[in-house]
Amino acid sequence: MSDETLHHVGFVVASIENAAPGFCRIYGVQEISKIYHDPLQRVYVAFLQPQPPGSCQIELVAPAGPDSTVQGFLEKGGGLHHLCYEVSDLDGRLNEMRARGAMMVRKPKPAVAFGGRRIAWVVTAEKLLIEFLERG
Amino acid sequence: MSDETLHHVGFVVASIENAAPGFCRIYGVQEISKIYHDPLQRVYVAFLQPQPPGSCQIELVAPAGPDSTVQGFLEKGGGLHHLCYEVSDLDGRLNEMRARGAMMVRKPKPAVAFGGRRIAWVVTAEKLLIEFLERG
Repeated sequence: MSDETLHHVGFVVASIENAAPGFCRIYGVQEISKIYHDPLQRVYVAFLQPQPPGSCQIELVAPAGPDSTVQGFLEKGGGLHHLCYEVSDLDGRLNEMRARGAMMVRKPKPAVAFGGRRIAWVVTAEKLLIEFLERG
Repeated sequence: MSDETLHHVGFVVASIENAAPGFCRIYGVQEISKIYHDPLQRVYVAFLQPQPPGSCQIELVAPAGPDSTVQGFLEKGGGLHHLCYEVSDLDGRLNEMRARGAMMVRKPKPAVAFGGRRIAWVVTAEKLLIEFLERG
């Protein structure tokens, strides 16, 4: 992972609108980003901003409907959900992860929350869910 | 949070010995640190090393007995558990977090995994569990 950085940590909530004020207060930030609707993943996502200095971003994720990819996780209580690493070579990184034993969850697709940059998801045998974001 | 950095992300597993090989393979690291036994929290903890460059550390946490602070979380499936921020002024930071509405979970105490540096725990209304580590 020599070229990559931890871009954000995803936290699943029932409602971004309801959770945002508490997260902003706790992190001492003014606001969240625009709330993006990702129809491919059937989620809403938003980021605390400005990003806490020296730290990775906090992403709030909420289901957009009962068939959302995070609905099951929310029903178990929600909370810390995934780590997202930003990488230069997304396809090469995914091949490497597969060779190391990770399972593909979602193949690379453009993500509205990242200006169309591609994201992909893998999960490890120990059930660590990892998102990879192609560097812009 | 101007002076602080995300020090590590904690991931709860049933057994560090069993989980470590898979985590090391996935992250492409050689080994984990010494496994520390923290009798105050009744957990075992270890860190992937070397730390992935440009990223925060990954901490594996496992219960040390059925009365462990992470036993309940493990019984719900384990996984991503907490964020740990390293701060210069631990006591001031905790006062600030309380003023912002966070609940104290554990007051500052020395932690064997950090050479006796003090750690403390808070939880937010949205159930984000945050550890603060006093800068060395």
